[in-house]
Amino acid sequence: MNTQQTEAPADNVRAVQWTDGRLKILDQRLLPARVDYLVLSTVEEVAAAIRDMAVRGAPAIGIAAAYGAVLGAARAWERQPDTWRREFQRQLPLLLAARPTAVNLRWALDRMQAAAERCQAYPVDALLREATAIHQEDTAANHAMGRIGAEYLRNSRAVLTHCNTGSLATGGFGTALGVIRTAYSQYLIDTVYASETRPWLQGSRLTAWELQQDRIPVTLVADSAAAWLMQSGRVGWVIVGADRIAANGDVANKIGTYAHAVNARHHGLGFMVVAPVSTIDAATADGKAIEIEERKSSELLEYAGIRLAPAEAQAYNPVFDITPGHLVTVLVTEKGAVEAPDAEKIRRLLR
Amino acid sequence: MNTQQTEAPADNVRAVQWTDGRLKILDQRLLPARVDYLVLSTVEEVAAAIRDMAVRGAPAIGIAAAYGAVLGAARAWERQPDTWRREFQRQLPLLLAARPTAVNLRWALDRMQAAAERCQAYPVDALLREATAIHQEDTAANHAMGRIGAEYLRNSRAVLTHCNTGSLATGGFGTALGVIRTAYSQYLIDTVYASETRPWLQGSRLTAWELQQDRIPVTLVADSAAAWLMQSGRVGWVIVGADRIAANGDVANKIGTYAHAVNARHHGLGFMVVAPVSTIDAATADGKAIEIEERKSSELLEYAGIRLAPAEAQAYNPVFDITPGHLVTVLVTEKGAVEAPDAEKIRRLLR
Repeated sequence: MNTQQTEAPADNVRAVQWTDGRLKILDQRLLPARVDYLVLSTVEEVAAAIRDMAVRGAPAIGIAAAYGAVLGAARAWERQPDTWRREFQRQLPLLLAARPTAVNLRWALDRMQAAAERCQAYPVDALLREATAIHQEDTAANHAMGRIGAEYLRNSRAVLTHCNTGSLATGGFGTALGVIRTAYSQYLIDTVYASETRPWLQGSRLTAWELQQDRIPVTLVADSAAAWLMQSGRVGWVIVGADRIAANGDVANKIGTYAHAVNARHHGLGFMVVAPVSTIDAATADGKAIEIEERKSSELLEYAGIRLAPAEAQAYNPVFDITPGHLVTVLVTEKGAVEAPDAEKIRRLLR
Repeated sequence: MNTQQTEAPADNVRAVQWTDGRLKILDQRLLPARVDYLVLSTVEEVAAAIRDMAVRGAPAIGIAAAYGAVLGAARAWERQPDTWRREFQRQLPLLLAARPTAVNLRWALDRMQAAAERCQAYPVDALLREATAIHQEDTAANHAMGRIGAEYLRNSRAVLTHCNTGSLATGGFGTALGVIRTAYSQYLIDTVYASETRPWLQGSRLTAWELQQDRIPVTLVADSAAAWLMQSGRVGWVIVGADRIAANGDVANKIGTYAHAVNARHHGLGFMVVAPVSTIDAATADGKAIEIEERKSSELLEYAGIRLAPAEAQAYNPVFDITPGHLVTVLVTEKGAVEAPDAEKIRRLLR
């Protein structure tokens, strides 16, 4: 019996929505226990939601920041139409500083700033059109990447993914999870292994929840069990997203991505990175130049207020790592796939 | 300022103690929140303590089972001195079945059975002597391995260890942690990185706690951050224990060991396995023949009763993996070190 439910890729979750002049965010800190929304009216609230990870995932935080800029322009205009532009400019750094590693945040804010510069008078309608365009283009890019990436998965049956790269992490549909959704709808894969993704447990809390909404079979494993899955022949590809891709193809992504890449290479398996071209930072030469965010050690040392380690224990909590481009079998973007990415191939892709 | 406290390797913890005719076990399920002991009087209680991981670590469960056999013989003699031997024989499989992967359990029970066969009359004193010998020999072996292993760590400064292999996991002092204690006392290393070791968090709960008792600096990291530690040059060696070593040098150890080994090889770092010869199972040809224990998925899906994943989420929870001998830089035993272990070298070691 084939348990697949549909041939149209399912996608039932919305992390970021603009509604009645405010930004509605699905609070990902509460999942899977509670599906609850934050309704945000100010730049400060949006910056805090990004910093505290109520919304996370590189594309989603770019989109949230774009809507945040709309809120900022509206507030600035309301206060003083003559000088709205100056106040708007003052607010953008707040959003930009909320998370350091993902480049989509800067990319989206650069677009919003350029749109603001084009405004002659009341800016809110034009800025909302720009933010909505960023959002819709992201979702469209995800569907395109889904089709391109799925082509690589013929006969792989099971894949492993890390962190959450689905509708929760994007404008909708997902990057790596978009490829997985498409491949599942095309009967190219039967099942998904998701690594739990310590310390924040995006795999357990978000990916498992999101795939359940769409009735795609998913099995959680400890991050450290991924190599054993590969050795025992259970997975054909590893598929991940990216928070920033350097000009030479080096990939910054959730901590643990690099270990999966090394292990995939060791076992001769494919390692696919799925990201819109907005994730590529041509101004960053290589991975060494990317700032790796360190978050507080309590993310590792506590869970829901319960200590996991003795009092005064020390922890080192980098939340991203760098995978060299030469370990990437294929980089899938909405503009096409790049096998074994390097500086020359990335340049050609961006032309 | 040198913060090292002592030149004599410290070791302040006892996981398994025989006291007043009963077996006292430090309940490792409660650490680090509570230091609490179970006092066990029957084979059934000892088997349950091993199965439920109140006591864990391959050498420690061997020692606990040996004392469990003493309790079994005492009870059997008390009930019916004529037929104590038959009842004793019936009890051993209970202990043997408590955990499947570690071979030390079988090895210790084989020794207890042989000792029982030598008994002419009241068996308890002779069996207690045998169990005590197993315990003391284990601790002595750990000190010997500490000295042998530490020699390899000159100029490495920082090492990474996985799971818990210290006094909590052994008769005292530890295998991999014994090497670390010795190397620290000899000023060969300054600091220890410990991977948290999902799902049971032996690194966070036990290793961090145990090293704190001895004032050895320890920094916890997510399991998935180990490869990034290696890439960024923070560690020189990976040092682990073993639950069973096959005749060809393949190593069964805590899930995640294999990923660390692949990553260590990728980065040109040393990968050291520290285990007494009782861990070597000459009857098992290679890693493929070793049974890998799967534990219940709730270990991954819940913590302290709190769900980490949505209801009905599936998980695959193998708690050991196999590292091929060719990825082991050096196997350290109390009979000497074996570099790049293989069947021939293991045979020579055991001669």
